[in-house]
Amino acid sequence: MPQDKSLQDLFIETLKDIYFAEKQIYRSLPKMAKAAQAQDLREAFRHHQEQTEGQIERLEQVFELIGKPARGKQCLAILGIIEEAKEIMEEFGDSQALDAGLLATAQAVEHYEISRYGTLKAWAKRMGLKDVVPLLEENLKEEKETDVLLTELAGTIVNAEAA
Amino acid sequence: MPQDKSLQDLFIETLKDIYFAEKQIYRSLPKMAKAAQAQDLREAFRHHQEQTEGQIERLEQVFELIGKPARGKQCLAILGIIEEAKEIMEEFGDSQALDAGLLATAQAVEHYEISRYGTLKAWAKRMGLKDVVPLLEENLKEEKETDVLLTELAGTIVNAEAA
Repeated sequence: MPQDKSLQDLFIETLKDIYFAEKQIYRSLPKMAKAAQAQDLREAFRHHQEQTEGQIERLEQVFELIGKPARGKQCLAILGIIEEAKEIMEEFGDSQALDAGLLATAQAVEHYEISRYGTLKAWAKRMGLKDVVPLLEENLKEEKETDVLLTELAGTIVNAEAA
Repeated sequence: MPQDKSLQDLFIETLKDIYFAEKQIYRSLPKMAKAAQAQDLREAFRHHQEQTEGQIERLEQVFELIGKPARGKQCLAILGIIEEAKEIMEEFGDSQALDAGLLATAQAVEHYEISRYGTLKAWAKRMGLKDVVPLLEENLKEEKETDVLLTELAGTIVNAEAA
């Protein structure tokens, strides 16, 4: 690790934040899959849960590479988004709009993760952590792909209901 | 408004969520501008505060167009992100990494807003709310531009500190 101690600390804090967030998402995705009405959406949530497992493992590799124990730190942003998902499932559980609401929540999650991985990757580059960069890059790539997939699904679900 | 009552309700709930979020951000930006070390970043936060004022007005026009009072609804996600910003200002207030942390927070905010406006715009289109779509489109465009600007600034600040 480099001399810039404060950036190093910030990197570790943010890594703990996304590690906590990914673990929370891992636990929430089965509930969202169970609630979803469209089969495509259920499958997308299940697939993303498997992907999230791999992302958590990559984060654990990052902790190992920087010589720190893999520990989460409460991430209020992701808890807030997950809480909103619960409200949607309660309020719209028996309506046609449920899937639209679940998709919106999932996209808010993806965008949070995209911003975090973009930041962490930039900082890792800056600190010269060459082995860490590709691990964060891979997670970033997967989150962006998931966001594109969810946008496509939103279109499909719209069309199916409009038809 | 169309027949799909549940999507209409979801649209209104999400509109209230982003209306609350924008107002919170409007109040937080001066604190972030005051804390920022780099002049470019201070100016970016001040400029975005002015922009946010316009975005709040556009949201009020949307409420008017759909015949509902402009009311916010507590958005836990944005409160979580703002709380994280406060923690960063406290923990890294006297360090070189402060601006990097403020930038990361601001980008998390932008990504949250981008996901919300993307969703609201898609739903407005689906419900045939033709006058509403361009207002949401304009807010979405501004948030995306702000995210690009913040990414550029992150590069500048990196270079300035590395120099």
